[in-house]
Amino acid sequence: MVLHGYFRSSASYRVRIALNLKGLQAAQVAHHLRKGEQNAEAYLALNPQGLVPTLETDDGGLLTQSLAIIDWLEELRPSPPLLPSDPWRRVRAKAFALAIACDIHPVQNLKVLARLRRLGIAEAEVQAWAASVNRDGLTACAALLDGEPGPFCFGERPTLADICLVPQLANARRFGVAVEAFPRLIAIEQACAGLAAFRDAAPDRQPDAE
Amino acid sequence: MVLHGYFRSSASYRVRIALNLKGLQAAQVAHHLRKGEQNAEAYLALNPQGLVPTLETDDGGLLTQSLAIIDWLEELRPSPPLLPSDPWRRVRAKAFALAIACDIHPVQNLKVLARLRRLGIAEAEVQAWAASVNRDGLTACAALLDGEPGPFCFGERPTLADICLVPQLANARRFGVAVEAFPRLIAIEQACAGLAAFRDAAPDRQPDAE
Repeated sequence: MVLHGYFRSSASYRVRIALNLKGLQAAQVAHHLRKGEQNAEAYLALNPQGLVPTLETDDGGLLTQSLAIIDWLEELRPSPPLLPSDPWRRVRAKAFALAIACDIHPVQNLKVLARLRRLGIAEAEVQAWAASVNRDGLTACAALLDGEPGPFCFGERPTLADICLVPQLANARRFGVAVEAFPRLIAIEQACAGLAAFRDAAPDRQPDAE
Repeated sequence: MVLHGYFRSSASYRVRIALNLKGLQAAQVAHHLRKGEQNAEAYLALNPQGLVPTLETDDGGLLTQSLAIIDWLEELRPSPPLLPSDPWRRVRAKAFALAIACDIHPVQNLKVLARLRRLGIAEAEVQAWAASVNRDGLTACAALLDGEPGPFCFGERPTLADICLVPQLANARRFGVAVEAFPRLIAIEQACAGLAAFRDAAPDRQPDAE
């Protein structure tokens, strides 16, 4: 398999964690988002959205959208499972993941920040937009974990929820959000940092890291 | 079950279609988004994100995020299935749905447009932002259907992909996008309009329609 991604893309980071948790290997091909390489014609043929990641399967299939890719990995290799076995926890873990993947990440990604700059918004306001989207989103995420004892988001093992949370916390820090305001989320991040699958997927450990 | 929603919310619209396709009933409680009712303390206790929809289950469970709710309905009542049985089509249907749910909808919803207005962006530019997010997103969606014969997005029956597409096309029209530019998507919309499950879920047929 080949993972087309970018070291700092949090959607690519999610897939890297999932691959590692499943013990699956994928060669990495980097597309430099800040240089616009995701908009090259050759890449758009792989991913019409011009987004990373794309997973190329061994038989040449092209999978897009990090959460769909992770579901596919779950079908390919069911163990260890990336969702809780209890149906109630399972739906809450999915909702938590989607709260990040739909309502935080796309509203603070490079594409949206570039749109803001094109409208003439000053850089300080652009950064404040991204910080506030992260802050508001993480506040809701913390509330969605109400009643969950840990150490991970939904129980004793990492799930899709943790896979989405850890990269988003990295983004939040990059935008200057005081993440200590979310002690429960930070405790989860620390639990994840105890696992090589998470550590090895971190942006600064990727071949294209700058 | 109780569905907390808003007639014009496309995420609520998705859940209404899924409930109808499954033949499930839910009482509707409307929260007027333009009046900010989703930010009332009582509603935030149901949904910490302050977003619609929320599904209250018969045993008092609170489910958030439309795609997680639809997955839960799929577990509750597996027939008719809302995903293709073929694994390759299944992952592509999920990716198509996520391309809308992550990369179009949240970048043009009320919350983001309100943020733009607070930055002093003129109304014409705000509308142009929403139109362009829809246009770019639907262009990618059309490409993601490459090789699929129809009549629905992924085969002979409606799936999660159609459930996300139809409400998004309604949004695109509201923002003045010339949707005829996407003949394949319009043909799918017409196929869906042949089904009562889709027609009955339309915004103008809801009790809170204005």
